[in-house]
Amino acid sequence: MEAASLYIGMDLGGTTFKALALTAEGTIVGRIQQDTQAARGPQVVVQRMIDALRQLQGETEADTHRLAAVGFGVPGILDLPEGIIRRSPNLPGWEGFNLRTALKQHLNLPIAIENDANAAVVGEMWLGAGRGTRHFIMLTLGTGVGGGVIVEGKIVHGVRGYGGELGHTVVDPNGHPCGCGSQGCLEQYASGTAIARLAEPHYGKVTARDVAEAAQRGEPPALEVYRQVGHYLGIACASFANMLNPECIAIGGGAANAFPLFIDALQASMRQRAFAEVCASVRVVHAQCGNDAGGFGAAYQALHYGSV
Amino acid sequence: MEAASLYIGMDLGGTTFKALALTAEGTIVGRIQQDTQAARGPQVVVQRMIDALRQLQGETEADTHRLAAVGFGVPGILDLPEGIIRRSPNLPGWEGFNLRTALKQHLNLPIAIENDANAAVVGEMWLGAGRGTRHFIMLTLGTGVGGGVIVEGKIVHGVRGYGGELGHTVVDPNGHPCGCGSQGCLEQYASGTAIARLAEPHYGKVTARDVAEAAQRGEPPALEVYRQVGHYLGIACASFANMLNPECIAIGGGAANAFPLFIDALQASMRQRAFAEVCASVRVVHAQCGNDAGGFGAAYQALHYGSV
Repeated sequence: MEAASLYIGMDLGGTTFKALALTAEGTIVGRIQQDTQAARGPQVVVQRMIDALRQLQGETEADTHRLAAVGFGVPGILDLPEGIIRRSPNLPGWEGFNLRTALKQHLNLPIAIENDANAAVVGEMWLGAGRGTRHFIMLTLGTGVGGGVIVEGKIVHGVRGYGGELGHTVVDPNGHPCGCGSQGCLEQYASGTAIARLAEPHYGKVTARDVAEAAQRGEPPALEVYRQVGHYLGIACASFANMLNPECIAIGGGAANAFPLFIDALQASMRQRAFAEVCASVRVVHAQCGNDAGGFGAAYQALHYGSV
Repeated sequence: MEAASLYIGMDLGGTTFKALALTAEGTIVGRIQQDTQAARGPQVVVQRMIDALRQLQGETEADTHRLAAVGFGVPGILDLPEGIIRRSPNLPGWEGFNLRTALKQHLNLPIAIENDANAAVVGEMWLGAGRGTRHFIMLTLGTGVGGGVIVEGKIVHGVRGYGGELGHTVVDPNGHPCGCGSQGCLEQYASGTAIARLAEPHYGKVTARDVAEAAQRGEPPALEVYRQVGHYLGIACASFANMLNPECIAIGGGAANAFPLFIDALQASMRQRAFAEVCASVRVVHAQCGNDAGGFGAAYQALHYGSV
C-alpha cells in the first residue's frame, strides 16, 4: 500500500506558533505549539519553526503516512508573488524579510505561504462553518478584525496578496480613528478592543469578556454595546453581500463567542440594507474551528497550492 | 482556410438594445441598435432581439467568418444558475421570466447571460481600461451606480449571480435614503441623480451635465459637489481595495465624463483610508469603452463561457 500524504499547517503568531498535521481528508494526526520568541529575529524563528516541524513530522510520519507539503499562515501584509513580509505589527523587525527563500533553504517540500487571517478563512471553509460552500466570507473578531473572501472555492489574494482586509471596511466615514490611518473602520466597532471601548462610559476599564458576561447577566448597557456591534457588522455584511453574493458569512475569533448577543442586530441591519435576493441566499453563522482554523487553512493551501 | 469565429454581444436596456459583432480578438465587424419596446413583454422583446441578431449575422457572416456564440447583458437581478430574471426595474413585468429557456428556443448556438453592469466590467477588462489586468473593479456612474468585480480574470457572480452591486455599498450609515431600502449607499453620492440632488441647494433643478458644466466654468458650488462625489467614491474604493487588492479600478458611465473634476478628491480620500501597500498597487482610471463596454463584455462571456 502506498503511504498516505500528510500536510502540516503552521499558524505563526507574535507570541506562539502552532502546527497541525492533517490527512488530505482533514483528520488531525498531530499538533505542536511553541513560543515564537519573535524578538530574536526572523532567522531564529524560522529555525524554531523548522525544528518543530521536524519533531511533528517524526511523531506523525509512519509506514502509512508521509509528509507531502507544509503551509504557513503568517500575520501581516505579505507580498505573495515575492514571498516577502512587507509589514507585520506582530513580528517587529520582519519588514522586508523574504520568508519563502528562508523556508526553502530548510524544507525540500512543496510549501504555501498565506496571510494568517486568510488561512483561517480557508480552514473554516474546509472543515468548519463554510464546509461545502464556494462563495464564503469570514470575519475574525479579535484584538483587531481580520477576514477574508473566498470566490469559487479560492481565497481572494488580489494582485499582490494583500486582499482580505475586511476589518478596514469603512462603516462610518466620520467614525472613530483607526490605527490604520483611516477612521470609522469596522475594526473600531466590532473588535474586542472596540467592545471594551464602547463599554467604557458605563463600566470603566474592562475587557470584551467582562462586557459579554455583563450582557449575559442582562445588563442593559452591555446589551446595548452588543446591539451596536451587531448593527455595524450588519452594515459591513450588507455591503459584502451586495458585492459578492456569498452563500455563507462566518463570524469567528474570541469576541465572536458573544455571537448570540449580536446576531439579531446584525441580521436586522443586514436585511434592512442588502438586497432581498442577496439576503435570501446567505447564512450568517458562528465560526466552528476556533483556534485551529489557521492551521487547517495553511494545511489546505499546502495540499492544493503548495509549490517547491 | 477555416472560417474565423464571430461573437455577438447584446446589451439589452429598457429603451434600446444594441448588439456588436466581434472577432475573438475583439475587432468590431458590425453593430445594430433597435428600440426594446419593453412594454410589449418579454416574448416579443426576445423575438425582436433574435430578429436583430439574424440581421446582424447576415451582415457580418461570410466565407471567412461564422457566428459561434451569443452573449446577452441584461439589466436587473438575474438568477444565473436558472437563467431567470428575478427583478428588473427597467423591464417591468419580466419578473420570473426564464430568459435562458426563451433564448434557447430560438438560438441553436452557445449562449451566455450576464447582468448588464457585470458585462460592462468584463468588456472594460477585455478591451478597455482594465486590459491586461486580472484583478479589476469598475464602477459605472449613471442614473444609478453599477459595478462589478473581476478576480483572477473572471467576473464574480457569487452563488446565484447577484454579485457586483457595488453601488449599494454603504458609505454613510446615516446617509441619504436609497431606493433599495437602505440608506447612505454609494449610489446616493456618486450617481448622476445624486450629483443633481447635491447641486440642488445652489442651482435648483439641474442635471448632472449642468453641474459638470458649471464646475468646468470654475463655479465653487459645483466644484464642491464634485469634491464630495470624489470623497465618497474614495471611501468606497478604499474599502474595495483593502478587501480585494485590485490592480485597477475604472470609473465609467455618463457621470464619469466629469472624471477630472473628482479624481483628486477620490485619490486623497482613498489614500487616507486604504493601506499604503494596497494603494501602491492600484490605478484609478477613467473607463475607455463608453457605451460599447456592455456589448464587448457580453461577447467575451459568449466566447469564454457560452454553453448550449
